[in-house]
Amino acid sequence: MTIRYPNGKKYTPVPKTDEKLPKKKDLSYSNRGKTLEEEIDETNEFYLQRNIAVIHKKPVPIQIVKVEYPSRSAAVIREAYFRTPSTTDYNGVYNGHYIDFDAKETESKTAFPLKNVHPHQVSHMESSAKQKGICFLLVRFSSLERYFVVPLEMLLLAWSRMLNGGRKSIPLGEFEEQAIEIQLSYFPRLDYLKAITQLLP
Amino acid sequence: MTIRYPNGKKYTPVPKTDEKLPKKKDLSYSNRGKTLEEEIDETNEFYLQRNIAVIHKKPVPIQIVKVEYPSRSAAVIREAYFRTPSTTDYNGVYNGHYIDFDAKETESKTAFPLKNVHPHQVSHMESSAKQKGICFLLVRFSSLERYFVVPLEMLLLAWSRMLNGGRKSIPLGEFEEQAIEIQLSYFPRLDYLKAITQLLP
Repeated sequence: MTIRYPNGKKYTPVPKTDEKLPKKKDLSYSNRGKTLEEEIDETNEFYLQRNIAVIHKKPVPIQIVKVEYPSRSAAVIREAYFRTPSTTDYNGVYNGHYIDFDAKETESKTAFPLKNVHPHQVSHMESSAKQKGICFLLVRFSSLERYFVVPLEMLLLAWSRMLNGGRKSIPLGEFEEQAIEIQLSYFPRLDYLKAITQLLP
Repeated sequence: MTIRYPNGKKYTPVPKTDEKLPKKKDLSYSNRGKTLEEEIDETNEFYLQRNIAVIHKKPVPIQIVKVEYPSRSAAVIREAYFRTPSTTDYNGVYNGHYIDFDAKETESKTAFPLKNVHPHQVSHMESSAKQKGICFLLVRFSSLERYFVVPLEMLLLAWSRMLNGGRKSIPLGEFEEQAIEIQLSYFPRLDYLKAITQLLP
């Protein structure tokens, strides 16, 4: 759980200066404290520049209540609220394929808690898959520095197991068996489209 | 131009009660004062419910500057600004096809002004089309109650004509010749996917 301070900034611990630097190899492939969202943005920018794919993060949905129009300057939103998204965060097109996914991360070293996934996201992906979209979760085990593409079918099995009273998380072992692990590379670090080729028709 | 009052609400004229009701046929097919966005939302909801397509409007992109976290209630955004969108407003998937479009309306009865279209939207559609996405504009001539699907190729021709010093709008006659007119129906009123079948590969 992220601690949120009243000014809306996340608490970021100050790195100790006497900490040993990671080995060179680790440094090259390290995410240098980037959020998963920043890593994906970087990858998507790479895809866009190279004409590999056009995939964007959707803006956060906001309910705007009050806007001020100061003369000679930009409109200022003075009261607004966060709304629950009705879809996943990322979508776009890759060589004729509709791509749709959400990105999730966990600090756990043993399992991915399904409470990170919202029911409306599951049903959105189910609807998109019926239209032959390629739908998945991109999950980062942050403490392990491991990334997996979870095909929708795998998510749906775990989801229905939970709805039937079974476990509320997906153990790492299931990821290793059924998900597609993303092999980190130098640039882009997170070449997730390479990992989904086996999901394409 | 919509009149904007300081509280951010649009001015909506109160309908006169002694106004004559439109003829029955007009009423059935009329948009009843709906915005183009509302009409498209209604169509997209119809497509979603019938498993025809999954197409959503993206949220308006906002730069959030200040958020308050009152105890025991939802976070309130207290300062935020509208950002320029980097993509079109609508995208999704329709039977294996990636769909990407923007909706525009004009009060003009003779031509569609290209200033309604932003350069980043044009380049976004060009990139998406290279990935085999189906990209177009949906244009409403509000005074004429006529709706057209403008294929990207038609837009690009008019766009480069403008960049080369030619006219800054697309005349209605070109719409009638080169665009696809949407035949209004009862429900959904604006069945735009029917109009794009000739754009599919």
